[in-house]
Amino acid sequence: MSLKKGVLLYEGKAKKVFEVQGKPNLVWLEFKNSLTAFNAQKKGEFENKGQINLKITRIIFEYLKSRGVRTHLVEMVSDHEMVCEKVKVVPLEVVVRNYIAGSLAKKFNKTEGEKLNYPLVEFYFKNDELQDPFVSDEQALVMGIVEEQPILSKLKHKAHRINDNLIEFFQACNLQLVDFKVEFGFNADKELILADEITPDSCRLWDVKTLEKLDKDRFRRDLGQVKESYMEVLNRIEKQWSHLC
Amino acid sequence: MSLKKGVLLYEGKAKKVFEVQGKPNLVWLEFKNSLTAFNAQKKGEFENKGQINLKITRIIFEYLKSRGVRTHLVEMVSDHEMVCEKVKVVPLEVVVRNYIAGSLAKKFNKTEGEKLNYPLVEFYFKNDELQDPFVSDEQALVMGIVEEQPILSKLKHKAHRINDNLIEFFQACNLQLVDFKVEFGFNADKELILADEITPDSCRLWDVKTLEKLDKDRFRRDLGQVKESYMEVLNRIEKQWSHLC
Repeated sequence: MSLKKGVLLYEGKAKKVFEVQGKPNLVWLEFKNSLTAFNAQKKGEFENKGQINLKITRIIFEYLKSRGVRTHLVEMVSDHEMVCEKVKVVPLEVVVRNYIAGSLAKKFNKTEGEKLNYPLVEFYFKNDELQDPFVSDEQALVMGIVEEQPILSKLKHKAHRINDNLIEFFQACNLQLVDFKVEFGFNADKELILADEITPDSCRLWDVKTLEKLDKDRFRRDLGQVKESYMEVLNRIEKQWSHLC
Repeated sequence: MSLKKGVLLYEGKAKKVFEVQGKPNLVWLEFKNSLTAFNAQKKGEFENKGQINLKITRIIFEYLKSRGVRTHLVEMVSDHEMVCEKVKVVPLEVVVRNYIAGSLAKKFNKTEGEKLNYPLVEFYFKNDELQDPFVSDEQALVMGIVEEQPILSKLKHKAHRINDNLIEFFQACNLQLVDFKVEFGFNADKELILADEITPDSCRLWDVKTLEKLDKDRFRRDLGQVKESYMEVLNRIEKQWSHLC
């Protein structure tokens, strides 16, 4: 089918969201070259970042689809744009952690890289003004962030399932999946599906041998070689995906 | 029985804990006159504060006992000291909120005093160095703060039960129970019982008509009349308790 870009609905930190002409259940996502961290207090960009992240997202979403995980991806429409199902986003960032890093290390004064006994799922309320606060299940419910407990259970279940599959895939790419953030939304059929993206912006990925960081921490912590690291992730997963296909 | 104070085991912000001679399952708690806030960055005191808070705790604990809630209180040994069962404290501050106030108002940018649809239970990891961070159930488990999920369920169940009973008692004193913090521990019989204290240090109590604060927020926020407010709470609950007895 021939899809046509409609009006801009919303511009986020790393993506623009457009309507799709005559298709009210679809949206047109444009991946930008910008990089932000610390609630957008730190800003940057690099050439082709949008393309690289879109390619990574596409492969991960195709892989997850092959494992039975429903995502919002409908089709690619350019090298930095994809058309997706329009979803009503659940305003929770769902974080899954396999190893201690980032804010968890800081919160409990622990060393980064320590393996957790089992994967930890956390919710953060998506709200820029409040700086995306960490919330418990009870807070999410009583503050009206989600309507009912079964939604939280489903989010956790889906997050664990995605994690199990991603660990396996990244392991085959010699990448250690330290943690990642995903978002979910309800589509026109009220199905709760994986939305947004899965990229080095939203995952911590370390080389399994050297433990070198190959993700946005290179930008957050001024480690340099940001673009090269994203390219390295893309190259590894492209190779692995071509083996699987 | 005649109990004798033993050696000092631990000095906290508002209490000293001593052994009881020849009674390894008991501790001797001395209520101090000191007041602290903001992780002890703000310090103060007033005369007879230890006595007032002990009297309030005794009445509340006797009342809760009459409602079937097990507490660590064994007996009063002076006007500012009580002997309690020794417990292995669960390192979680259990907060119950009926109305929005304090850190919850700040976190979600809400007005203080808004009633929640139902009581909210929160856990904070008791750790001065980490500044008592808010934790989810999953974090408490995976970070080894508690050993198993049933402990968290029991804490919540007991906290709700205490809340239901306290709301009723304070209502009869024309006091609105906005929120409170309790701690629990396992006694020698491995029973999970209410420990620590229940006082205007650990509760937010507002006059039902004027909404005047009668608790530690008067100290935190430099509202004055700190001692007078604690005395007011004591007077009201003494009167109500004498009606019930």
